[in-house]
Amino acid sequence: MNVNTIALLHPGNMGVTIGAAAATSGAQVVWASTGRSHATGKRAGNAGLKDVVNVSDAVRQSQVVLSVCPPHAAVDVAQEVAAMNFRGVYVDANAVSRATAEEIGGILTKSGASFVDGGIIGSPVKQAGTTRLYLSGDRAEDVARLFAASMLDARAIGNQPGAASALKMAYAAWTKSTDVLILAIRAFAAHEGVEKALLDEWSVSQPALAKKCDRAAAVAVPKAWRYVGEMNEIAAAFEAAGLPKGFHLAVAQLCERLACFKDQTDPAPTVATVIDILAQRAGYRL
Amino acid sequence: MNVNTIALLHPGNMGVTIGAAAATSGAQVVWASTGRSHATGKRAGNAGLKDVVNVSDAVRQSQVVLSVCPPHAAVDVAQEVAAMNFRGVYVDANAVSRATAEEIGGILTKSGASFVDGGIIGSPVKQAGTTRLYLSGDRAEDVARLFAASMLDARAIGNQPGAASALKMAYAAWTKSTDVLILAIRAFAAHEGVEKALLDEWSVSQPALAKKCDRAAAVAVPKAWRYVGEMNEIAAAFEAAGLPKGFHLAVAQLCERLACFKDQTDPAPTVATVIDILAQRAGYRL
Repeated sequence: MNVNTIALLHPGNMGVTIGAAAATSGAQVVWASTGRSHATGKRAGNAGLKDVVNVSDAVRQSQVVLSVCPPHAAVDVAQEVAAMNFRGVYVDANAVSRATAEEIGGILTKSGASFVDGGIIGSPVKQAGTTRLYLSGDRAEDVARLFAASMLDARAIGNQPGAASALKMAYAAWTKSTDVLILAIRAFAAHEGVEKALLDEWSVSQPALAKKCDRAAAVAVPKAWRYVGEMNEIAAAFEAAGLPKGFHLAVAQLCERLACFKDQTDPAPTVATVIDILAQRAGYRL
Repeated sequence: MNVNTIALLHPGNMGVTIGAAAATSGAQVVWASTGRSHATGKRAGNAGLKDVVNVSDAVRQSQVVLSVCPPHAAVDVAQEVAAMNFRGVYVDANAVSRATAEEIGGILTKSGASFVDGGIIGSPVKQAGTTRLYLSGDRAEDVARLFAASMLDARAIGNQPGAASALKMAYAAWTKSTDVLILAIRAFAAHEGVEKALLDEWSVSQPALAKKCDRAAAVAVPKAWRYVGEMNEIAAAFEAAGLPKGFHLAVAQLCERLACFKDQTDPAPTVATVIDILAQRAGYRL
């Protein structure tokens, strides 16, 4: 695959580092500033991405389009690119369900593009070993090669578009939902007046759990507003696989309650404030 | 509290070790063989418990009655003892909900007994440090003292009957339900054809999870048939606390599917057989 130019739609905190990683292939990575914030522009500029102003110009120049955006915007971005008769390789690296990934694949291939499904696991790429980009679809290996010289660990996992998204869901089905479950259990223990006894018991038999609570409150809770859609998608995917959907629906419900902590990272929420909100909200809703 | 005799109802795998621990107080521990199996008799005899044949004789001689039985039998045992006008200290150490513990407490105190709620966390008492017996109620400290010289770590956690049961539920709400969740995620990943990729990712970022699956299949799955009632009770308790009940209802549903592995410990179930059953059952039910 001969790639001179790669379009990144759009350079968020995660996306900008994926774009920078793609630039290590030697291709120029472009983005489109129209309608984007000043903060996005600054981030993209610092990462060495070239602003071509309009999405249509970005797409026209590029052999590869990388879509890294909030999950709810993924289908819109795909439709916008498909409407420009893009015939290169479109990579959707968003946290969408397999079904949504397949829908996006359908939109792109109908307009003549190749589709590669992607799933990012880990944090923004700032050092080696922290982030994997899973890729599936006929051109997955070609796309993975673009990142061979970068700190991003890009892994092709087969021809089936949808597999990368399914993997990302299976992963989040544990990590994100147990972060929320453990806080719900703390809220339950507090409601029952046995929180201290539970922490004492954990210190003996489950020594990792108290720290998991602290980390879930500080790191997961400010992002919980974003998990709602993802947990609902996991629930639907579990149901489609013949497994109960209730687990992840319950997580989605709790994430709605935690939305009041949206992006509050300084100071980060504490377990005490989170379970207070969970319990109070619970009270108000009954 | 002057305790010469303690009745143990009934000496199962766990109960017989609690009875032996109670005997370190110097009291004689009695049990009633009527209607019990040969295996139970052998177990009780080996532990040095004295068979007084009938429950009524056991109760009449004792200042303390310990109920350690399957959760579904806990209320019946309490009613049987209350009907004998027992006026000593009744300890219910079963895995029942706070609501059920409070119901049992009501049955006993109405007939003139003192009630202590108990919750056992850990394995049968065969060495020090493996098992805690949490106790709550007015006489909780008196009961805890009976075990002071034993390998069982008995902990009084306040006057409120129900607290010990609530603690046990909060504890199981994590341990048992995540054992089942992790296997459901494996079944999901297998259904989606991404199991190997998931294990590869876990080996990088969640190194404890593959082993957790193996352990859940081998240790938790043979007991999953017993978790159904407990998970339904936790679901009801979460709902009463204003938290979603869906997590634990989903776990209960999966435990029903796993009931075909009841008590199969030799050979223990493997992850592959368990997810096969989960997936097949899922298929059949759709």
